[in-house]
Amino acid sequence: MSNRFQEYHESDMAGRKAVEVYLDLLSQPCRAVHIFLNHNKIPHMVKTVALRKGENKTPEFTKLNPMQKVPVMVDNGFVLTESDAILKYLATTYKVPEHWYPQQPERRARVDEYTAWHHTNTRPHAAKVFIMEVLLPRMTGQPPDPAKLERALAELGDTLGKLETMFLKRQPFLCGDDITLADLLAACELMQPLAGGRDVLKDRPLLVAWKSRVRSALKDSFDEAHGVLYRLRDKSRAKL
Amino acid sequence: MSNRFQEYHESDMAGRKAVEVYLDLLSQPCRAVHIFLNHNKIPHMVKTVALRKGENKTPEFTKLNPMQKVPVMVDNGFVLTESDAILKYLATTYKVPEHWYPQQPERRARVDEYTAWHHTNTRPHAAKVFIMEVLLPRMTGQPPDPAKLERALAELGDTLGKLETMFLKRQPFLCGDDITLADLLAACELMQPLAGGRDVLKDRPLLVAWKSRVRSALKDSFDEAHGVLYRLRDKSRAKL
Repeated sequence: MSNRFQEYHESDMAGRKAVEVYLDLLSQPCRAVHIFLNHNKIPHMVKTVALRKGENKTPEFTKLNPMQKVPVMVDNGFVLTESDAILKYLATTYKVPEHWYPQQPERRARVDEYTAWHHTNTRPHAAKVFIMEVLLPRMTGQPPDPAKLERALAELGDTLGKLETMFLKRQPFLCGDDITLADLLAACELMQPLAGGRDVLKDRPLLVAWKSRVRSALKDSFDEAHGVLYRLRDKSRAKL
Repeated sequence: MSNRFQEYHESDMAGRKAVEVYLDLLSQPCRAVHIFLNHNKIPHMVKTVALRKGENKTPEFTKLNPMQKVPVMVDNGFVLTESDAILKYLATTYKVPEHWYPQQPERRARVDEYTAWHHTNTRPHAAKVFIMEVLLPRMTGQPPDPAKLERALAELGDTLGKLETMFLKRQPFLCGDDITLADLLAACELMQPLAGGRDVLKDRPLLVAWKSRVRSALKDSFDEAHGVLYRLRDKSRAKL
């Protein structure tokens, strides 16, 4: 996968090196970056950093990102961390359709508003369910504590309710009539518990319809980035 | 306080209504918005929402912001929440010096990188110490649990270490040579534990020097916004 856009790059972007991204597709924000690059045909090279093998803690990677986190982007020597910042940088630096991160101040502010909210709502609450149902049981061999899991699901439920009543109430996407970086970050996050076989959107028709719109808008890039997650889902469903 | 800029507005910005902001100056992100508006002389009106009196939960305020949080900004009918988004909107919509939120993509990306990081590091860790040492004791009449407080201080210490070694290592401000929205958000957050008499920067000369640079750059607007916090600090020190 690493070199798939090398050729595209060399013919179309003379003098500019392809964007390098360090990703693990089991990480939600990494998938968002991966989808954005592929969908918008931005010339890039993927370097896989397998978190489960601790590849984010090697001296080499730590030199690149002392926080030891993925994703990391390197564009012509400029090193950037944080998926939120990487996506906004790519959307403003490369020629991508304007709807992703609109120029118009009010419309852009809506995307900034959601992404700020995302960090303390959608992201931690969906991630927690994944950690409790998938990561911790693997590490400890123990099933999740039912009371703690119930609390995590209730917190996620509260966030899902807000997504429905406050963001999607009168519009097809989180920030308006078209897909933005907000939908991309949110969708990748809400897919994560699927690795443990749990579809958190199941009983929420408004969010199911939204996810389906997001997936259609992204075409193949969405399912491609989620391949590893779908395999985990199938494995955990086979176990049940 | 509410009408201090009304006159300025009427003479300088004919036809455009002053920005309205709903704030409680005991909230860190509210102070950041307050300082930004005052320092940059953006015509505005402050409407106080006293969180301790539950004024964020009235039907009227809930209609404005169903999340029941402050700050909220209303600019010519455009309602925006999330301090991060409000500051970026104000910086791009009003004529303020470019250093706050640079146009140049790499420099802007550095601010977006810090603000994304801020939401899951500086903000929750500094807020937790304040909640444990100030809010919870007031509500329960009990002092903080020493083990839990120690853990919260260790988490905050880890964040402070990263601010020093990763952001301030070779530059005077978090994102470069001049003050940005990142410094404003970070400084307001790191002041918060002072309400309980705790100066979290005390033994960290790099951060003390940084805070002093931030305060100088902001002139009176910094101390003015922190007046209510200074009064709490003096009260808690008098008790010791």
